[in-house]
Amino acid sequence: MKAKFISINNQLFLEEEAKIHVSDLSVQRGFGIFDFLKTINGKPIFIEDHFNRFYNSAKELNITVPYSKENLFKAINDLMEGNNLPNSGLKIILTGGFSADGYLMAEPNLIITQTPFKLDETSFDRGMRLITYNHQRQLANVKTIDYLQAIRLQPLVKQQLADDILYHQDGSVRECPRANFFMVKGKTISTPKTSILWGITRSKILNFNIDGYKILAEDFTLDDVKNADEAFITSSTKNVMPILNIDGKDVGDGKVGAVTSLIKDEFKSLLQKVMA
Amino acid sequence: MKAKFISINNQLFLEEEAKIHVSDLSVQRGFGIFDFLKTINGKPIFIEDHFNRFYNSAKELNITVPYSKENLFKAINDLMEGNNLPNSGLKIILTGGFSADGYLMAEPNLIITQTPFKLDETSFDRGMRLITYNHQRQLANVKTIDYLQAIRLQPLVKQQLADDILYHQDGSVRECPRANFFMVKGKTISTPKTSILWGITRSKILNFNIDGYKILAEDFTLDDVKNADEAFITSSTKNVMPILNIDGKDVGDGKVGAVTSLIKDEFKSLLQKVMA
Repeated sequence: MKAKFISINNQLFLEEEAKIHVSDLSVQRGFGIFDFLKTINGKPIFIEDHFNRFYNSAKELNITVPYSKENLFKAINDLMEGNNLPNSGLKIILTGGFSADGYLMAEPNLIITQTPFKLDETSFDRGMRLITYNHQRQLANVKTIDYLQAIRLQPLVKQQLADDILYHQDGSVRECPRANFFMVKGKTISTPKTSILWGITRSKILNFNIDGYKILAEDFTLDDVKNADEAFITSSTKNVMPILNIDGKDVGDGKVGAVTSLIKDEFKSLLQKVMA
Repeated sequence: MKAKFISINNQLFLEEEAKIHVSDLSVQRGFGIFDFLKTINGKPIFIEDHFNRFYNSAKELNITVPYSKENLFKAINDLMEGNNLPNSGLKIILTGGFSADGYLMAEPNLIITQTPFKLDETSFDRGMRLITYNHQRQLANVKTIDYLQAIRLQPLVKQQLADDILYHQDGSVRECPRANFFMVKGKTISTPKTSILWGITRSKILNFNIDGYKILAEDFTLDDVKNADEAFITSSTKNVMPILNIDGKDVGDGKVGAVTSLIKDEFKSLLQKVMA
């Protein structure tokens, strides 16, 4: 099922009519930022965090968002009313606008799409398999639309019977294209600190208090991951997802780990608190 | 003056109606490649070179071009007939297509635009000013639509009263966002070799025979450029353009150099040969 409407510059268009002119700088120069959040029972989750990151991403690219947070919130509400999809993913894209010469920045275009989405709880038990790839995302702290490497590598991921990629820079672990990475080793749960996107789910988990465990933002290498007991990734779509295999080798015993399950439950509790 | 038509998937659309659905992977994920060539008196210049690079760029991103070179040539001819712009720039963009989930690669979309363009010969005498910026383009040999850094830095370039950026990686000179860089030092004309886009104009110049000069693809540093006698950049729009100032410091004596002029004349001769 698709959403009925897509919002472009705060105007609702029927999904099939949501088009933009090819002079837009996203098409011409891959120039844009976005953010993505989910709604549960009609409530946008952690919307303040996502808005803050969205405005910060725009600022880092020297794009002025032509709307206040209130405008943005209203645009999202209008779209949600039109679509009536209480459980969904909301994607807010801001492009460089229609450029007369295909290069100079113009008045930004704001595109908001909504997709029906509900977390499949059984996916947690299946976990995921990653392959590693040496790549440092440019402007890593900025949620740009640049997924050149991730899309390009789709055939490789498929060929390796994996689910996604784990980027590293010369062995230093970074992140997945759309998720942050965590590893569990003894009593320490750690996630890379440097040159990554600051995921909202990651930031929530870094604030957890888990009895007997330290939760740290600190860099580590692929070699460290080889000796990890557990690994998992986090994102707004996946919440917490166990990583059972990397480059064909099991992580720990290759089964969903107890600490990963604990973090998943803790995150679920947080969501329930937010929903209450 | 704008072109009357834009070609999308080999169909001509009136310029103002040339739109694509927002689910295209260029909008969603900045995923696409392109090439750019000029026409002089209705003749596309070095079209075989540009086609070869275009197909190679697609291959590097694992995109299958859904058209043969003959199809592509016909699409360009149809567009040129419709627009009647003998002196123009032709931009051929291939995107990742309309993606159902905004992530998985789909059937590519081909967009061809034509813009009236004729080289302003007086711009050579004015030359250009650059500022340097530490950035290594990803997939440097591939002509992707990724110009995130270049567009983002437009306010900085303006503020520094410069015309463009010179990328370097930790001091090792690379290229400008849309042009290759050359320096002249004594009897040697050199252009970076590593991690750059292989410009068509650059490749032609590397084949020049200039009496008494060596023309080399070899890496050099920003420090080397400080001691250069002359510098210039090359591209399909600019041909050969003197660089008179970098980061506020004159290159050589800050005037258009004799070797740069020689290369410019030689390239003009080559174009005349191609046109004959």
